[in-house]
Amino acid sequence: MEKEISRAVIRRMPRYYRYLGELIDAGVERISSNDLSSRMNVTASQIRQDLNNFGGFGQQGYGYNVKYLYEEIGKILGLSEKHNIIIVGAGNLGQALANYVEFEKFGFRIIALFDVNPKLKGQSIRGIGIHMLDELDAFIRKEHVDIAALTVPKANADTIAAHLVELGIPAIWNFAHVDLKLPDQNVVVESVHLSDSLMQLSYNIAKNKKE
Amino acid sequence: MEKEISRAVIRRMPRYYRYLGELIDAGVERISSNDLSSRMNVTASQIRQDLNNFGGFGQQGYGYNVKYLYEEIGKILGLSEKHNIIIVGAGNLGQALANYVEFEKFGFRIIALFDVNPKLKGQSIRGIGIHMLDELDAFIRKEHVDIAALTVPKANADTIAAHLVELGIPAIWNFAHVDLKLPDQNVVVESVHLSDSLMQLSYNIAKNKKE
Repeated sequence: MEKEISRAVIRRMPRYYRYLGELIDAGVERISSNDLSSRMNVTASQIRQDLNNFGGFGQQGYGYNVKYLYEEIGKILGLSEKHNIIIVGAGNLGQALANYVEFEKFGFRIIALFDVNPKLKGQSIRGIGIHMLDELDAFIRKEHVDIAALTVPKANADTIAAHLVELGIPAIWNFAHVDLKLPDQNVVVESVHLSDSLMQLSYNIAKNKKE
Repeated sequence: MEKEISRAVIRRMPRYYRYLGELIDAGVERISSNDLSSRMNVTASQIRQDLNNFGGFGQQGYGYNVKYLYEEIGKILGLSEKHNIIIVGAGNLGQALANYVEFEKFGFRIIALFDVNPKLKGQSIRGIGIHMLDELDAFIRKEHVDIAALTVPKANADTIAAHLVELGIPAIWNFAHVDLKLPDQNVVVESVHLSDSLMQLSYNIAKNKKE
């Protein structure tokens, strides 16, 4: 378990986790890597290889116990811990994130939003309060926060992110259109770059036309 | 150019493109792979290797011409073509996407939103009209649409996606919490799975704690 697992493997684990969750909902108890493979559009050998990084979980010719595998992958992904999230930036995107009930299924709980827009003061989304940004410090000192989602304009992103790190937030989920420059390397950053994703799409559109 | 380029390389290209764009804005004309490397937090040899997939672009010991490299990567990513986008689902997320002016810089133009909520009928975001979903077919027959962003609930995603493919939309940018099951393999799909991204974050939080 102590060896370095490649980013590509880690990137596939949430997908396994989601699929196994759907199988549990559908009452499936056991699945072969072949069946999992055809559902997920990944080769069976890729699945076996990926899971072997964590010690296997399957028995030759007997397939995987769906619930067990789901729970083990959940542990690998750190989902046995609950995570409290705050959203900094309560514009459309921040509000969209606050509306996603899906995250709660995986133990991610959004506990507050913050913004500078005084019109939003005292409003709430699904019962989650919108606070003013100047209340952030006091809030973080009082509440346990694991993750700050950053949905602010690009120009303010670095400053706010640095401040969040100063306040001891261990992880930033960055939606600003910029790769954050943070002094402290000890903070975990995951960026959702929507324009990068659009460029992947246009690459594949162009490739598709050529074929 | 005809050999298969790995997904990992393609995934890094938008980042190069964004960085080179920032360098152009800052008036930088030439950059060595070492300088690009330290800015981007990727090794210089990785950069050289990545770019060699497309034939190089640099001269040993002389660095890269920023503008030329920017334009060439743009061509690789299909950005020399403009792309028209419609957004299906004008909830918070759909509206957030419509508000991103950043996309236009890369040639992605959002031309319409669609929803079933009659309250949204006739409204607009940054001048982009919100139409009712039953006007979709007529709209697509009249306008050239390259990409449909799908920001509808999970339960409706597959049906609407299949309909978009039927109408001849060549690419779907999927935000629904599901891997779309589409009959026609000729359509390009790029999914933004926000919960997967959160799980990457919790994996790294757990890993960080152990270290």
